[in-house]
Amino acid sequence: MALLDFILGRPLASSEDQQERIGSFAGVSVFGLDALSSAAYGPEAALTILIPLGLAGVGLGIPITVAVSAILVIVYFSYRQTIAAYPQGAGSYTVAKQNLGKHAGLGAAVALMVDYTLNVAVGISAGIGALVSAFPALQPHTLVLCLTVLALLAFMNLRGLREAGLAFMPPTYLFIGCLMLVCLIGIVKTILSGGHPQPLAELPSPPPPQTTISLWLFLKAFAAGCTAMTGVEAVSNGVPVFKEPAVKSARLTLTFIVAILIILLLGIAYLVSAYQITATEPGSANYQSILSLVTAAVAGRGVFYYVTMVAVLLVLCLSANTSFADFPRVCRTVSIDGFLPSSFGVRGRRLVYTQGIVLLTALAGILLFVFNGVTDRLIPLFAVGAFLAFTLSQAGMVMHWLKSQEPNAYLSAIINGVGAFATGVTLLIVIVTKFAEGAWIVLIVLPLLFLIMQAIEWHYRDVAEEIAISGPISLREPSPLIAVVPLDHLNSVSARALQTAFAVTKKVHVVHVEHEDSEEDFAGDWNKYVKPAIKQSRLPAPEVVVLKSPYRQVVAPTLDYIWKLERENPDNSIVVLIPQLVESHWYYSFLHNQRAAILRTVLLLKGRNRILIMDVPWHLNCQLKVRGRHRMEPWDRAPAWLDR
Amino acid sequence: MALLDFILGRPLASSEDQQERIGSFAGVSVFGLDALSSAAYGPEAALTILIPLGLAGVGLGIPITVAVSAILVIVYFSYRQTIAAYPQGAGSYTVAKQNLGKHAGLGAAVALMVDYTLNVAVGISAGIGALVSAFPALQPHTLVLCLTVLALLAFMNLRGLREAGLAFMPPTYLFIGCLMLVCLIGIVKTILSGGHPQPLAELPSPPPPQTTISLWLFLKAFAAGCTAMTGVEAVSNGVPVFKEPAVKSARLTLTFIVAILIILLLGIAYLVSAYQITATEPGSANYQSILSLVTAAVAGRGVFYYVTMVAVLLVLCLSANTSFADFPRVCRTVSIDGFLPSSFGVRGRRLVYTQGIVLLTALAGILLFVFNGVTDRLIPLFAVGAFLAFTLSQAGMVMHWLKSQEPNAYLSAIINGVGAFATGVTLLIVIVTKFAEGAWIVLIVLPLLFLIMQAIEWHYRDVAEEIAISGPISLREPSPLIAVVPLDHLNSVSARALQTAFAVTKKVHVVHVEHEDSEEDFAGDWNKYVKPAIKQSRLPAPEVVVLKSPYRQVVAPTLDYIWKLERENPDNSIVVLIPQLVESHWYYSFLHNQRAAILRTVLLLKGRNRILIMDVPWHLNCQLKVRGRHRMEPWDRAPAWLDR
Repeated sequence: MALLDFILGRPLASSEDQQERIGSFAGVSVFGLDALSSAAYGPEAALTILIPLGLAGVGLGIPITVAVSAILVIVYFSYRQTIAAYPQGAGSYTVAKQNLGKHAGLGAAVALMVDYTLNVAVGISAGIGALVSAFPALQPHTLVLCLTVLALLAFMNLRGLREAGLAFMPPTYLFIGCLMLVCLIGIVKTILSGGHPQPLAELPSPPPPQTTISLWLFLKAFAAGCTAMTGVEAVSNGVPVFKEPAVKSARLTLTFIVAILIILLLGIAYLVSAYQITATEPGSANYQSILSLVTAAVAGRGVFYYVTMVAVLLVLCLSANTSFADFPRVCRTVSIDGFLPSSFGVRGRRLVYTQGIVLLTALAGILLFVFNGVTDRLIPLFAVGAFLAFTLSQAGMVMHWLKSQEPNAYLSAIINGVGAFATGVTLLIVIVTKFAEGAWIVLIVLPLLFLIMQAIEWHYRDVAEEIAISGPISLREPSPLIAVVPLDHLNSVSARALQTAFAVTKKVHVVHVEHEDSEEDFAGDWNKYVKPAIKQSRLPAPEVVVLKSPYRQVVAPTLDYIWKLERENPDNSIVVLIPQLVESHWYYSFLHNQRAAILRTVLLLKGRNRILIMDVPWHLNCQLKVRGRHRMEPWDRAPAWLDR
Repeated sequence: MALLDFILGRPLASSEDQQERIGSFAGVSVFGLDALSSAAYGPEAALTILIPLGLAGVGLGIPITVAVSAILVIVYFSYRQTIAAYPQGAGSYTVAKQNLGKHAGLGAAVALMVDYTLNVAVGISAGIGALVSAFPALQPHTLVLCLTVLALLAFMNLRGLREAGLAFMPPTYLFIGCLMLVCLIGIVKTILSGGHPQPLAELPSPPPPQTTISLWLFLKAFAAGCTAMTGVEAVSNGVPVFKEPAVKSARLTLTFIVAILIILLLGIAYLVSAYQITATEPGSANYQSILSLVTAAVAGRGVFYYVTMVAVLLVLCLSANTSFADFPRVCRTVSIDGFLPSSFGVRGRRLVYTQGIVLLTALAGILLFVFNGVTDRLIPLFAVGAFLAFTLSQAGMVMHWLKSQEPNAYLSAIINGVGAFATGVTLLIVIVTKFAEGAWIVLIVLPLLFLIMQAIEWHYRDVAEEIAISGPISLREPSPLIAVVPLDHLNSVSARALQTAFAVTKKVHVVHVEHEDSEEDFAGDWNKYVKPAIKQSRLPAPEVVVLKSPYRQVVAPTLDYIWKLERENPDNSIVVLIPQLVESHWYYSFLHNQRAAILRTVLLLKGRNRILIMDVPWHLNCQLKVRGRHRMEPWDRAPAWLDR
């Protein structure tokens, strides 16, 4: 399949799998993309909640951001602990499972799977949101653009992104650089203008205030802003990838990421307040993202504006890519424990976990489609999974430290305990405030996924128990098989089936169903054509059974005979030889009756362990002979796509 | 399946198949429905063509009907001959095949199949047309009504209409009686009023004349009117059904049918002319059928009018039923000669040819849908098939007489020759005049069907040639089989497969594919768990083959090994034992990899005759054990629907 090779790249051997170690600088782009890109939609989400306050909402930006940053700092210290405790790398699933038990682990895994799926959808739709802000003409095509990016990401990931981390560095640092510059210029201008800078681009007029500040609105905005924290856990998954000393490098990377993120969040909040920027309604015709408004206000709609927007777009789309790396890995990890089919653990032709990528693409595509490609509607769904995984992971760490003998374990337990408490409270706030807006969906989906995956595990366990061998297997001198050969007509195919039956056993039953719509004289033909051959070859004479079928059925009487034979011979296995005409073209199969296929299927499904089915194929090549084409040859080599 | 029994009726045994002989009186309704019902749409079709002439078209009705009647008389005499020559009954297919060769027969069969399909569509849509004329409120629901009647007919025919002939007598004679009465009253009133009777119901105002009379228009109207002749051949198919003397009874029936038909056609034409009735545009909002207009004009819109309309509706729908009896029979006849799959010749549970009925329903349904349930658009397509079958059948009769030694054979040949000529010329007229309006479709469909059915026959012949046995088959002392057992893991399922392999042969190859994503130590497990068992049971040690798979494929390397084994052992058949987990519920099968199914399919399709496939099922019942449900038992009796 050269075509597949061309599209997906040549197959990679298992031995070609080697990963380069990375330093902290590269680590920021490899593991930080998800977290940093949150700066693009976290503030946006919070400010959107504040739209009903009108201009009064602008002032709330800073306190909310401070609260979010505080949680972020707590989470930062918690994950520093996790990195130290699990230098081999451990995601929320592993930490929760090892310290809180299998079910907590499964809960974290399910939360992460939902989180990653939403991250893909949110990342892509925020990226396209930035693009649409820069080019409002694209606004009607939002959904198509989102799905195109999704398809592109899926395709790239199926090919395998081995050098992805390094390739992601330029856009990551371009993004950081641009936004830092915006903050710097904006702050300088604000100070120079005495606190009231003049925007360089026209800002949307603030919406009329419809309500006043309340604790409820503040909490809602805070919950929305917390989405800015998602992705912080990524570093702790990948400690072994870092250059030695790995723990130190990883911690440094985490520090960089969190520091940059906090600077960006506070900077944006300050500028929003200084420039009196209010959010625009997402999905509306005059929608512009907060980053776009801030950048335009600070630097005008010049080249720098467009460079910044491109960087935002790239980073948001690439942050979706983080999920493409992590989701299949989570699937694989839980599949090892039996919560998902083991095929999630099999690497495809390009050494990536194909099934996980395909599943993620399908789920994210459905989300984008249902929500019509608009980020904001997805955000209520988003934070629940992320914070549930945070909380379980942190709680797991508390247990870890309590059981640990290390010095200072007690202190570490407190740090993680504070983290668990903070993220747990935030989780509750997010659930309560966002409940009506969609968080309830996640609260249905999470337990449902949990139950399904638990059921899968039960099933695998039951199967494994049933077929497991404990110690040496037992083999014995086999008792003879009984062969049943159902024959409609006497022809070369049936002759071959008969010959094969004799190769398998000496006890052969030939079953023929006679009904009045068939005009053949089977018994007569048998005596004429088969009996002499049997005599001559000195084979044991088969038992010929002619069944009457008053209702013109063929399969049912044959089956009844086989069940009867099974009952009467409790010690023998029965092998049913099914003569099969194999056509050279699939469409010819419509021309032959499907009794063989029906018989086979029913025997397999409804038969018991003592009934074996043997297909005796007869490959037709008359077409080829007659029309002078090549005879069909089996492949010299079986093609690789068979296994994909 | 009690449900199926309830819907379709209990299965009928072949021995329950017996037909009562019928007399001429019943014969008119059994074989005449198709022909007589044509009186309802033949005149209509002709007059519709004449709409552009305005009132001037009314006068043309009589000459056209006389021309049609003349052809009808010729056809009548021709079929009298056919009845005499084939007292065992012979349709156009048989007559053409026996006298003109297989291809002429196939041509006639294809023409009849198209004819019957169109008859169903035309009959139903004309019947619903009559209903819509009586209740104009139903007009928008034409298509739905048509499809409902079609479904009803299909359902009744699948149940089997054994007493159909007798049940059809009341509506048939009601139809004949009503129309005869309309003609009688109308003619009397016309004479009494001195040629200018006053209509009792308002008639649509005649359309403004848009063109003048031309030969072309006349021929077109004649061609349309010829559809009134379809169905006349039915009696000749069913001669053996008549009471003795069968030929005489059949001829009398044919005479009755043709006489009544001619009287009705001429009567309607006369009344149309006397009452100055013009056709209305079919499918338009104010559409009324000619029969409705004539009846209303003659007798007013009273009870009699509605009784007549109901009779017309019934007879038209029942005439469609004639096709349901004939189409499956034609399919069966050609399937015996190999032009269609032999399953068309197998009678289903109710002793009817299920496949033919299903095919006819599907085709007629498509036609009704495409043409939106309006008769008139179907008529151009209609007559071509009917007249082609007429012509081929008559031409066949000419050959029959020329070869015959009977006295007066020469005279008979002339009669059939005139018939063949007349129907042939009519066929040409129909094709030429109706070409642009849709006859071209039939001219594409007919040859296409012809070619497809010819190709089917070639294929069957090739297959039969390849697998036919001439004389006694040859059996020999079987050479030992080589068993290949592909094993992923060692468990009870694989142990069973191994045990089964030893029951089949002493030469066993165990194939295991090793790749780095699987963490099992197959060779180690083998030595630990299997080797001792083999030694103890004194079975020959199997050859254990461990294949490396750098690209993580499993199926492909296994196949390659099997192909290799086949090449190296030209004298032995190879049996591949495929261990199959059979799940208690279908949805569990998603949880297991489908390698077994893929391997099986590829071996069957791409393998050669020397590769046999044996399924070694392992029926999982862990679910049942664990959750305490019943153990699955094979059916005590296999259900009947397996064969349907």
